[in-house]
Amino acid sequence: MPKYSRVAERTQHITGSVFEKFRPKMDAKGDDLVKLHIGDAYAPPPYRIPIDAEFTRGHPGFHRYCDTFGIAPLREALSEKVRRDNGLDAGPEHILVTAGCTNALSVAVQTLVSPGEDVLLLSPYWPFFRGMVRLAGANVVEVPLYARLYQEPSLDVGAEIERFVTPRTVMLYLNSPNNPSGKVLTRKQLEDVSAVARRHDLWLVSDEAYDGMTFDGHEHVSPGGFAGMFERTLSMFTFSKVFMFSGLRIGYVVTGRPTIEALNKVMVHQLYSPSTVAQQMMVEPVRTMVQWSKRFVEHAERLRDMFLERTKVSPPVPDGAYYFFFSLAPYLRGRGYWGVFDACMEAGVSVAPGEDFGQGYEDYIRICFAGEPPDRLETAVERLNGVLDVV
Amino acid sequence: MPKYSRVAERTQHITGSVFEKFRPKMDAKGDDLVKLHIGDAYAPPPYRIPIDAEFTRGHPGFHRYCDTFGIAPLREALSEKVRRDNGLDAGPEHILVTAGCTNALSVAVQTLVSPGEDVLLLSPYWPFFRGMVRLAGANVVEVPLYARLYQEPSLDVGAEIERFVTPRTVMLYLNSPNNPSGKVLTRKQLEDVSAVARRHDLWLVSDEAYDGMTFDGHEHVSPGGFAGMFERTLSMFTFSKVFMFSGLRIGYVVTGRPTIEALNKVMVHQLYSPSTVAQQMMVEPVRTMVQWSKRFVEHAERLRDMFLERTKVSPPVPDGAYYFFFSLAPYLRGRGYWGVFDACMEAGVSVAPGEDFGQGYEDYIRICFAGEPPDRLETAVERLNGVLDVV
Repeated sequence: MPKYSRVAERTQHITGSVFEKFRPKMDAKGDDLVKLHIGDAYAPPPYRIPIDAEFTRGHPGFHRYCDTFGIAPLREALSEKVRRDNGLDAGPEHILVTAGCTNALSVAVQTLVSPGEDVLLLSPYWPFFRGMVRLAGANVVEVPLYARLYQEPSLDVGAEIERFVTPRTVMLYLNSPNNPSGKVLTRKQLEDVSAVARRHDLWLVSDEAYDGMTFDGHEHVSPGGFAGMFERTLSMFTFSKVFMFSGLRIGYVVTGRPTIEALNKVMVHQLYSPSTVAQQMMVEPVRTMVQWSKRFVEHAERLRDMFLERTKVSPPVPDGAYYFFFSLAPYLRGRGYWGVFDACMEAGVSVAPGEDFGQGYEDYIRICFAGEPPDRLETAVERLNGVLDVV
Repeated sequence: MPKYSRVAERTQHITGSVFEKFRPKMDAKGDDLVKLHIGDAYAPPPYRIPIDAEFTRGHPGFHRYCDTFGIAPLREALSEKVRRDNGLDAGPEHILVTAGCTNALSVAVQTLVSPGEDVLLLSPYWPFFRGMVRLAGANVVEVPLYARLYQEPSLDVGAEIERFVTPRTVMLYLNSPNNPSGKVLTRKQLEDVSAVARRHDLWLVSDEAYDGMTFDGHEHVSPGGFAGMFERTLSMFTFSKVFMFSGLRIGYVVTGRPTIEALNKVMVHQLYSPSTVAQQMMVEPVRTMVQWSKRFVEHAERLRDMFLERTKVSPPVPDGAYYFFFSLAPYLRGRGYWGVFDACMEAGVSVAPGEDFGQGYEDYIRICFAGEPPDRLETAVERLNGVLDVV
């Protein structure tokens, strides 16, 4: 089993770029090197594009292929960001820019997991991860955790996870703040998760898509910053949540350099690299994020509280992310789950079905409280009250 | 073996979106539906982005997740384009927008090829495709073809390919105009390739990244437009070549609807979707491409001719794409291949090594003649003359 520090057999059959060994010589040549080895056009697109002329002039390579690890200025800015906010001792060489956190997760599974191996998914979990594990021919092992913590806050997290470890287990999928439950694990709980990973020599995939998105003073902690955890942990981030730009499809993963190189080999075979111009656009926002990032989180917290004030249901109050996740069982009143689900839709509110988030959540729904403007969210609350609070 | 019309076993274990069955109801609700089922923020990014304000106002969803098949206006524009230019009878529902042609190829292999199966690669070929086949656990079977056609233009293409077909063969990878050789197959040759695919019930992956990029009156023909070939052929295109925007990472695949759906399931597990805003930016250029696309092709042809006029080597004259691909053997003069390769680099010209493009091309190099401005290309020719034309 290729546990921590080893990669999946499938990746042994692909090669990196021959130019890696020529890199020092090419760098030494600088601008004098005429590059005829890449298939790309030197001139910018000959049609109108709606990007500031000043920006494109300042970024002459905006239309071209870029370093497949990510453009240097972005990785430098991200290095500063994760040192400051996440306690990750990462230089630019420890960062791979990906096409969203989705792509980081896909690449990690393809690089590190082989057919027949077990991957632990703390549940409820983000649905696509299950599919990624299955596409790699590996086994999904669900560990019910986040939603339980609202009822049993003193649950021994390490012991719960350990019950599901087998000799085939190679990876543990952690997601705090959690989508869909909104649970944010405490530092102590994350240390317990990390201890399990170390004890059983597992890769730890830490999906931190909701990095920085915590309420009520809850703290977001990156386990990759714990002593001895940096290289074992794949810390993953996105520009889709706090940066509010899901339509750009950019994210990044932070870990040890050998793993970054292995991930890059797989990523170039999925999509070559994320968009050059999208990466260039995000350099300045990363540098300035301390000035603006708190505002959206505070706004989301207000939306959460507004929903809670007006709703007639009683979901667990999320610590972070921007979802309510709760069972419909108390509100069914003899109606079937899908009947009520459909009634929400009929009333003009779409919600996500619980079954997508893991076993045991078949009677749950997930509601995003940040995806519609406040007035529309109010309308949704009233409509949901009408469907769920039947007299 | 999952040959044509069947998909790989790995894809049977992932599910599509539950919302597909609710789609008609959701569409019927229109704007009145408050969408709380997607995890996304309603407000645009709170920091400055260098995109025209007028454009972002006209595309209020520019920052958000989009239809994972591709935004409707782009697929509609592309449908018109492939009907007009490629003879493909494709509606928007027959098009999947991907993160470049690279991603289209990766998704196709993951969706359609199982471990132990054979994939035929007409060679020389674009190097990453070999890695994609290997990542899927399948066998790369190389069929030397394009470069030979410069010497043997009357070669029986169908018979050459057929020699390599085994009972395990499920897919044939075609790339015309060819990277690296610049060969453009004739209509008759493409009909012969298509006949082999039909006779042995193979998927035909037609990588048409250099769509429209042909010289000397050579015609680009899409085999997916031949009678009975539309559903069997995955016709793949990109915005990286004639559109000159490789840094945007957008491409698309055209084929039958059931295959589009199967490809989409895998793609959402690799990266969710290509960039929303990038897709929005490309709608207008697709609509107007007849007005501008020929200019770059004509310019590339002039660069080719300038190179040929000044060079002291005698590469085959490419029919299309923007590469020279030729053996260094006549120019080695007792020096080893890598010594000369390194001497090019030392002289200030980087070229791509032949071995990446398949077996039998270990003493070749590939030169891109469109990646540097004319004056830099002239400098490169002189430098290459110095290295290769040793007195």
